[in-house]
Amino acid sequence: MHGLFSLYIRMRQAIHIVSYQVSSVLYYHHGTPEYIRRDIIGLGRKPTHLSAILKAEENQRPKADLDRLIEETAELAAWCASAEIPMLSIYEKTGILKKHMPRVYEAVMQKFTFYFAGQQPSLLLTSPHKDAYSSPALAGDKHGHLKLHLISTQDGRESIVDLTRTLAEMSQRGKISPRDISMELVDAELSEGIMPEPDLLILFSPNVELSGYPPWQIRLTEIFCLQDNEGFGYQVFLKALRKFAKAQMRNGK
Amino acid sequence: MHGLFSLYIRMRQAIHIVSYQVSSVLYYHHGTPEYIRRDIIGLGRKPTHLSAILKAEENQRPKADLDRLIEETAELAAWCASAEIPMLSIYEKTGILKKHMPRVYEAVMQKFTFYFAGQQPSLLLTSPHKDAYSSPALAGDKHGHLKLHLISTQDGRESIVDLTRTLAEMSQRGKISPRDISMELVDAELSEGIMPEPDLLILFSPNVELSGYPPWQIRLTEIFCLQDNEGFGYQVFLKALRKFAKAQMRNGK
Repeated sequence: MHGLFSLYIRMRQAIHIVSYQVSSVLYYHHGTPEYIRRDIIGLGRKPTHLSAILKAEENQRPKADLDRLIEETAELAAWCASAEIPMLSIYEKTGILKKHMPRVYEAVMQKFTFYFAGQQPSLLLTSPHKDAYSSPALAGDKHGHLKLHLISTQDGRESIVDLTRTLAEMSQRGKISPRDISMELVDAELSEGIMPEPDLLILFSPNVELSGYPPWQIRLTEIFCLQDNEGFGYQVFLKALRKFAKAQMRNGK
Repeated sequence: MHGLFSLYIRMRQAIHIVSYQVSSVLYYHHGTPEYIRRDIIGLGRKPTHLSAILKAEENQRPKADLDRLIEETAELAAWCASAEIPMLSIYEKTGILKKHMPRVYEAVMQKFTFYFAGQQPSLLLTSPHKDAYSSPALAGDKHGHLKLHLISTQDGRESIVDLTRTLAEMSQRGKISPRDISMELVDAELSEGIMPEPDLLILFSPNVELSGYPPWQIRLTEIFCLQDNEGFGYQVFLKALRKFAKAQMRNGK
């Protein structure tokens, strides 16, 4: 029985790996916004706020790994801009992306130039408690707009504890009554201070593990990962959007 | 292209549904703890705290739906007891299970009698801020022990807001200094007051959506659902445990 089961698992993994390879060949048009738009156009609904978890790899040279993370961020940003998804938040646990905001900004702008060649959307790059980087809006935003938001483990549990401490201090000083601390207040503070709740969260790992992702903000978020998939790729992005659109039909939301 | 993709999806769904049916036939031994133990025995690690999300169905008659939820709870409890998983927490959004603790207790005890016939483990049924139901330990707990914990949407975001309000009140009255509000304090209060973090969370739906599940408690939890699976069943439980054991080998945790 166990042997049969192992055989099934290995076959499934092989089939998945081959089918992901085939997908990457069939959908090899990352650099062409028109093709991405065509992939998306039939879908019943799109997320207005997409989120993704990217992972630093411990066994890599830190510099090469940072380059990879920045490249993946820029690709994702270009896919979202092509699909006209207005907000993308990227969670990277250690915060290394947040530390290199100018480099991330440059990389995304370069990628936009490569994808859109003069027709690029404008970009706003933000991170909690940091200054934003904003590109000049080209010809009145007619090419769209992407807000890219970088978050880390700090913006998860820690931000909830920080808010609790702040509200306790305000109560101590008589600036707020504890009775006024409500769901709405906490939700508004965390939504504005950290980020609002995403509609769809994509993982590029084969397992769903949130690894310290901001917990408050995922009450109704749909979380997607692809079975047996180990890496970053356009097919994960596309399948996630398709499943998101399908879930609407099923739930009748 | 889209036609091909639809065909692939339909084929995959058909294959999955057939393979789940075959699994349920192959693994039709829910009533036999020895068989469940044999399914589990080769696994490298087991969760010590397993959690599951069960869903009330809106279109069902409420009474029939409650009966189904209680039956599923009892089955899950028996599987966990057979697999020697010491803690099971069940999240049901609306809180209807928590409202019927005596009935849940009776149903689980009956199921234990059916499964274990005189050799049954002892049961402790708990829920936040409620009295516990405890079965007499039979012959010094030599048959094992299961803690079954029922939670609802109240125990999620609301419990975080309640804790914030309580800590603010204590600060106002000078019973605690806001500086003493730390990650450790909040974590300890939510772990003890609501529940500790589970190792593995199982959903019986085809999508991962947490639907208000306690957010604080899932930082490192592995979350499992089965593609295309729509219902409650032993094969989901078994596949989740197998994937959990496999994830350890891969991550080298």
